[in-house]
Amino acid sequence: MPLSATQINAALAYADAHLDDSLGRLSELIAIKSVSTDPAYAAECQRAADWLVSQLSAEGFDASARKTPGHPIVIAHAPRVVGPTAVFYAHYDVQPVDPIALWNSDPFSLTRVLAANGEEHLVARGSSDDKGQLLTFLEACKALRAITGGLPINVTFCLEGEEESGGKSLPPFLASARDELDADIALVCDTDLFDAETPSITTMLRGIVAEEITITAADKDLHSGLYGNAARNPNQVLADIIASLRNPDGSVAIAGFYDDVKEIDADTAASWKTLGFDGAAYLEDVGLSLPAGEQSRSVLEQIWARPTCEINGMTGGYTGDGFKTVIPSKASAKISFRLVAAMQPDKVRDAFRAHVAARVPADCKVSFHAHGGSAAISVPTTGKYLQQARTALADEWGRQAVLQASGGSIPVAGDFKSILGLDTLLIGFALTDDQIHSPNEKYNLKSFHKGIRSWIRILAAFAA
Amino acid sequence: MPLSATQINAALAYADAHLDDSLGRLSELIAIKSVSTDPAYAAECQRAADWLVSQLSAEGFDASARKTPGHPIVIAHAPRVVGPTAVFYAHYDVQPVDPIALWNSDPFSLTRVLAANGEEHLVARGSSDDKGQLLTFLEACKALRAITGGLPINVTFCLEGEEESGGKSLPPFLASARDELDADIALVCDTDLFDAETPSITTMLRGIVAEEITITAADKDLHSGLYGNAARNPNQVLADIIASLRNPDGSVAIAGFYDDVKEIDADTAASWKTLGFDGAAYLEDVGLSLPAGEQSRSVLEQIWARPTCEINGMTGGYTGDGFKTVIPSKASAKISFRLVAAMQPDKVRDAFRAHVAARVPADCKVSFHAHGGSAAISVPTTGKYLQQARTALADEWGRQAVLQASGGSIPVAGDFKSILGLDTLLIGFALTDDQIHSPNEKYNLKSFHKGIRSWIRILAAFAA
Repeated sequence: MPLSATQINAALAYADAHLDDSLGRLSELIAIKSVSTDPAYAAECQRAADWLVSQLSAEGFDASARKTPGHPIVIAHAPRVVGPTAVFYAHYDVQPVDPIALWNSDPFSLTRVLAANGEEHLVARGSSDDKGQLLTFLEACKALRAITGGLPINVTFCLEGEEESGGKSLPPFLASARDELDADIALVCDTDLFDAETPSITTMLRGIVAEEITITAADKDLHSGLYGNAARNPNQVLADIIASLRNPDGSVAIAGFYDDVKEIDADTAASWKTLGFDGAAYLEDVGLSLPAGEQSRSVLEQIWARPTCEINGMTGGYTGDGFKTVIPSKASAKISFRLVAAMQPDKVRDAFRAHVAARVPADCKVSFHAHGGSAAISVPTTGKYLQQARTALADEWGRQAVLQASGGSIPVAGDFKSILGLDTLLIGFALTDDQIHSPNEKYNLKSFHKGIRSWIRILAAFAA
Repeated sequence: MPLSATQINAALAYADAHLDDSLGRLSELIAIKSVSTDPAYAAECQRAADWLVSQLSAEGFDASARKTPGHPIVIAHAPRVVGPTAVFYAHYDVQPVDPIALWNSDPFSLTRVLAANGEEHLVARGSSDDKGQLLTFLEACKALRAITGGLPINVTFCLEGEEESGGKSLPPFLASARDELDADIALVCDTDLFDAETPSITTMLRGIVAEEITITAADKDLHSGLYGNAARNPNQVLADIIASLRNPDGSVAIAGFYDDVKEIDADTAASWKTLGFDGAAYLEDVGLSLPAGEQSRSVLEQIWARPTCEINGMTGGYTGDGFKTVIPSKASAKISFRLVAAMQPDKVRDAFRAHVAARVPADCKVSFHAHGGSAAISVPTTGKYLQQARTALADEWGRQAVLQASGGSIPVAGDFKSILGLDTLLIGFALTDDQIHSPNEKYNLKSFHKGIRSWIRILAAFAA
């Protein structure tokens, strides 16, 4: 159902005029504390799903929150029209907010802050990742419906509540819902702009393997005076193992880790060269100056095209105020690997576990807990929908959309391909300084506003 | 004021008959949550000091809680008699109770448990370290006063409230109170029996240097997808540093660490050989089998006569339930060194800091926080009071007291020597399986009961 230029402009004008209403709805969704990784917030995740069902139902969607072993998945179908079908994915769950002391405002209350550069920031947990991004699409649908009474193409929402906590429920759900998720293209809104003025479509994403290991030495906590020296200290064992994971040149030291890593193709390498990415500035922006990965690789390669091993958390012994002369019984770490190209999550996980097991003293125990994994993905840069989306983004932003990679992992894009046979367009409006997963997460008001406008144009372009 | 055998026996019988009263007082002191390292419990430390003042005043002591920059020090003088003067030291503060989930009963409620071997255990935080030990002496004084109307020698109590948190207030206090603490001998009750049937006097103690280090990399927490590889991870930096502290042979790898370490003298080595200490059993008792210290040294040497480096706590990044793909801004560790012989705390601290500083990447920062330190001490094994105490202990236990070393650190013994010119007799009734500093800390009822009886005999012996 192609739209006229007048209709498109009217929908854009509607979005402009009703931006405060859109922000009001974002405030409502932000206020729901849908921290998926912490069981204490399970009811909040359900509330977020219910809120979305209510919003989508009000817009004429056939919407429901589907039960899973974890948090619900919201599925909503728009009334059928003539034209292609897009599945839109985003996630309503958010990361934990700790360390809470570092937030300048309530993380669950959307706070508008005027930044030094004149931009207005929407500060809250999930403002950028991913509630703000999710709502750009929903608000675009609202504007189009307000003007045309419907949507120009068929749209199915698929909104997940476990993206930040392993996402285990989604793949089996997708497999069980293949028929109703039949579509021509998937749209995922969980990525960045290239920069504040330049849209992007992400065509490469790193995969991930997340592991938690626990080292147990003595069967109880010990006094370091009475046992110190003779009793194995699991903190020391864990530190020795972590230290063994990286070589002095910044590469990962696990045997076979790079076996399946492919160099990027010449075209991609050439296009990245044109981006003018300033690695030094990227690090300087967060107070660093020395790239920590493979010393033979540029910062851009390190974060987009090379696999890594990161210690996301570690703890053992007494970590409160003051001092306690204890040799703890246990120490543990949360460790994740970002994967590229053809690396296989299970193979990486097995190699890591073998590396660790070989380094645990004979009288200590190690236990492993898997926190999910997904392969890297690569989206074809040809194809009708990608070209239509590029044109629509150029119309909105006045610049060509960059085809870029991302160091992050969005497993759903791989799942859409492998389970539903769908290619995915990863289009998002976040910025690298949004501090997602950190205190004072923000989303630029401009990202939110132009994000809504961008989707209006893209949906119209798909119907052309 | 020498006592007759009849008086001594009457005092012992009094202690036996009034053991339940003694346990009642121990319950009262245990119930006061005097965790000195956590500022949240400062008022509880004051309450513990006030309780002790009240108990000692009721026994005719001139008792008061002296203000310090930290927690109060309780000083109490018995009415003067003809005879020598002993300063009795113990500490009323306790270690934190976490992990609280591992306790089988309320840590602040004295719980009597019948152990599998028929012994009755007094389970509570501080039951052994050091409230139970403190009260053995106080209850001995009560029994002697009940029978004789006074004490056979002059006794001054000096009870500290910061032993578990650096003990910073005690040395300046001792220096300011030299005159009123003038004495012939110091008694410290904070050490172990040799085994459940054999008393001991500890003549060697390791010293300690406690440090906290914090590594800061980026100026904020980062997303490991967007920055992973290129951004320095402080968890990795900290683990690399910790791993660098020990050599593969178990020795400490800090330059100059062993420079001032002396081998024990031949007499001491010979006497230790007669102890029949079973290093394998000592480790097996806590679920271990491989000594972790210098591989060329026996377990007994490792814990009594060799210095060590222990990681008492470390933390960085996300350590809650689930997973968070964060690269934290900071990571920190609490690290302590046990010192022997002539090792100087300041020199060890400086060497450690230099070792760390040399390993911090140029764009990271490290900060150091000192948590106290003390040199090792060695008590002369000749001398009248030690011989008198040995005889008294043999009378009570039916066995010679072993002259032993301890891997723990009791800085006050060094302070008594250097500040007050006093030799210290370290006599205690704890056992290595008391799980001090750990969940389910216990003191054997037999330790408590025979501890009281031992002090009655020792005080009488000093007056002979």
